Amino acid sequence: MAHNLAALQNLIDQFERIQGIGHKTAQRMAFYVLGLTENEARDFAGAIIQAHTKIKQCKICCDLAEDELCPICKSTARNKSIICVVEDPRDVAAIERTHEYNGLYHVLHGAISPMDNIGPDQIKIKELIARLADGAVEEVIMATNPTVEGEATAMYISRLLKPMGIVVSRLAYGVPVGADLEYADEVTLTRAIEGRSII
Amino acid sequence: MAHNLAALQNLIDQFERIQGIGHKTAQRMAFYVLGLTENEARDFAGAIIQAHTKIKQCKICCDLAEDELCPICKSTARNKSIICVVEDPRDVAAIERTHEYNGLYHVLHGAISPMDNIGPDQIKIKELIARLADGAVEEVIMATNPTVEGEATAMYISRLLKPMGIVVSRLAYGVPVGADLEYADEVTLTRAIEGRSII
Repeated sequence: MAHNLAALQNLIDQFERIQGIGHKTAQRMAFYVLGLTENEARDFAGAIIQAHTKIKQCKICCDLAEDELCPICKSTARNKSIICVVEDPRDVAAIERTHEYNGLYHVLHGAISPMDNIGPDQIKIKELIARLADGAVEEVIMATNPTVEGEATAMYISRLLKPMGIVVSRLAYGVPVGADLEYADEVTLTRAIEGRSII
Repeated sequence: MAHNLAALQNLIDQFERIQGIGHKTAQRMAFYVLGLTENEARDFAGAIIQAHTKIKQCKICCDLAEDELCPICKSTARNKSIICVVEDPRDVAAIERTHEYNGLYHVLHGAISPMDNIGPDQIKIKELIARLADGAVEEVIMATNPTVEGEATAMYISRLLKPMGIVVSRLAYGVPVGADLEYADEVTLTRAIEGRSII
């Protein structure tokens, strides 16, 4: 606003701090808030506080949870001999949507990235190693992102785990289903050729 | 989340209700909130409540204000014989940025749009007419948006004001400065030709 309304400017600034939200979007969101009824605004503010206080990390897999343990770690129906390691809680949700995987998860909350000063100690690798101590886990699937950082993290963890006699696997690379080969990048296509299977 | 965290889902829903915010962006914003410190989350929630309770409408021009009157209506330096009518408080900010206009404003908070059930009584036209009763205003500039609704609103108001002996003007239409003629649409170009001036 040209009028220097401190309360409005403060709200716009709050929205603008969110990664990927530009000034115009932040302004639009602030105006949305002004248009709410008093109860709606209170609910909105309450949702922020609630989410922040209620949601913790699962003591076992570090995924988000409202209790000590997340529903997957609590479940007796899941295969406890296999752990899928992901970078982010959203990745757990993505894999769960496939309904193909019945093991446990481990959320690293990041990937090793020396450029951003994130080393092995800044992500939940210690917690993963601790889970493997009792020998119940036979396989760890590395499902970190197919980026330089995700690759490096997968390599780092696999080197730690192999001496422990645990099978370490990696998600398959290849062309995405439904995509057009013409638009696949060279690296993906190279990996798809390397990983080809007999039909 | 696949895990049905009610508090997180509620926060995502809150963000998703904002016009123009999709599910992915809402999710990203909710995760941003989870990553805040407790104080930051409290500040964020507080900013929503503050903006909502502190910001009212100016009693005269209906622009946003923290006091009874907005700074422009309070100012003694502004020319009180001319009123610029806009649809939205953001339009006031846009015109103020030009530093070219020294009159007053009137914010309609919308435009007449029968399709959306918005008639003349749903926007601040009555308030505008009331401001003109004392005869101090000589000119009203219609700066509603160059859309069908903005046009209709400008026409409607100008028909109300002309019998009162007030000059009603409209912002000039034409090609935007710095734009490429090739990409101007036909309607804009037609208006630009119609409104040409001798140089």
